Amino acid sequence: MKPELVRTIAAARERCRELRQKGRLGFVPTMGALHRGHGALIEQARSECAAVTVSIFVNPIQFDRKEDYQRYTRNLPADVAFCAELGVDLIFAPEVEEMYPTEQKTFVEITDLSSHFCGKFRPGHFRGVATVVAKLFHIIQPDIAYFGEKDIQQLTIVRKMVEDLNFPLIVSSVATVREADGLALSSRNERLTAEERRLAPALFQALECTRKAIEAGEGVSEAKQKGLAILQKIPQMHVEYFEIANPDMQPVSEITGPVRVLAAVWLGQTRLIDNVLALKIE
Amino acid sequence: MKPELVRTIAAARERCRELRQKGRLGFVPTMGALHRGHGALIEQARSECAAVTVSIFVNPIQFDRKEDYQRYTRNLPADVAFCAELGVDLIFAPEVEEMYPTEQKTFVEITDLSSHFCGKFRPGHFRGVATVVAKLFHIIQPDIAYFGEKDIQQLTIVRKMVEDLNFPLIVSSVATVREADGLALSSRNERLTAEERRLAPALFQALECTRKAIEAGEGVSEAKQKGLAILQKIPQMHVEYFEIANPDMQPVSEITGPVRVLAAVWLGQTRLIDNVLALKIE
Repeated sequence: MKPELVRTIAAARERCRELRQKGRLGFVPTMGALHRGHGALIEQARSECAAVTVSIFVNPIQFDRKEDYQRYTRNLPADVAFCAELGVDLIFAPEVEEMYPTEQKTFVEITDLSSHFCGKFRPGHFRGVATVVAKLFHIIQPDIAYFGEKDIQQLTIVRKMVEDLNFPLIVSSVATVREADGLALSSRNERLTAEERRLAPALFQALECTRKAIEAGEGVSEAKQKGLAILQKIPQMHVEYFEIANPDMQPVSEITGPVRVLAAVWLGQTRLIDNVLALKIE
Repeated sequence: MKPELVRTIAAARERCRELRQKGRLGFVPTMGALHRGHGALIEQARSECAAVTVSIFVNPIQFDRKEDYQRYTRNLPADVAFCAELGVDLIFAPEVEEMYPTEQKTFVEITDLSSHFCGKFRPGHFRGVATVVAKLFHIIQPDIAYFGEKDIQQLTIVRKMVEDLNFPLIVSSVATVREADGLALSSRNERLTAEERRLAPALFQALECTRKAIEAGEGVSEAKQKGLAILQKIPQMHVEYFEIANPDMQPVSEITGPVRVLAAVWLGQTRLIDNVLALKIE
């Protein structure tokens, strides 16, 4: 059955109120350009909730570069068809003017967790993410909201926001979906040239290399260096950051518990991020 | 009937869920030390809603001065008795550790509206207010929340926060309650010495003088000067600010619509604020 598509906040509120009467309401916030990574979030929501709402909104206030906002893929008919396949009940796809009818002056800031990694290189990005997620939570009022582990810093920040502001909902995370060669699914992969696409899996390989070094007991700088060496062999790849973080998204100087190896690289005009969990067994 | 008193977030959520089944839930957030000003908020809530929750929480993160936080009046038994008289259904009075169990890293900021007046003299104050109000809204999930006009900048900021973040509730404001001599009710009035109490109504008189000057067509600086002259005659009174603001809480240089005359003064160790609306009839 085709999901219902609503474009206004008032209509979304009304339909979500009805959907909540069936039982738990699951929510998957997206910027559209849906792929199997989003599909995994929707399927998880579908399996745990009585109804599922997907939002499709390319949020201007989270883009630090205007050209990235303008270039971001928009294809609502394809996204609606994708949601229909997966049994989504409601799609909320507002225009920018519906979400920001007046000058936005209220922002949700998460300190410390936003300082490093993507937060350092994309000033204002996580403030924009947290703010729009807070808005969407208030409009949809889900019982469970689903976020992918690929955006680990975003996931950590949303979890902390929900905890700190006592949002009445659960944040559920879903593992990163990868291509057969390891490349994490991302809307931005479409922008890669054939050559860049061929090189892109090196990012995951580098993260895995560092993960294995950590799990084998190597120190932070040695483990990082091993992964970085893989990326540095590729002239087309520019490393923005390649780091090891604790669960509070702070860089670590030694490994004392579970950590994330996380990185952002540029391949030509396209920025890719990815991360893996490293669990050293003592 | 005595209102139920709950001290945990979990219990508040559960009881509010039950109360919402009766119909509209009204919410009056307070820091306790309840007086007839709060009483007017509760009565308004009582008349418009099926059930009323009052929160009593002296919020540490909104105090810019530690001694002000420590000195703030706390008298829960008196507050419970006050709420009982007014037919409150539920009192939520958490400890600090319940509201801030881990280091708070998420803050709600409202730009521009917080720049002037109290926001200028109390750095971080409105960030702390907006953050705790967001938390309380998520815990209580009211249909209507009530705020007093005495704290006009706070009211304006909460309204903008609710609008910008799409909180699913209505903000309702209630007129300032005054003593017979014009002094606005405030928990801080208790701290005044007998002499200070005698002098305190000059604040309202000065605001009224400026209001009348504006409504008589005088310019901003003349109107302000007339009010200020009243305060400057009182050596014990130190004026923190005495300003004319538009509805977006920006100082105005000319009168082109409805404005607020608002001021903060120190009387000895006590800071008093007040404001009045000025409507120039064209």
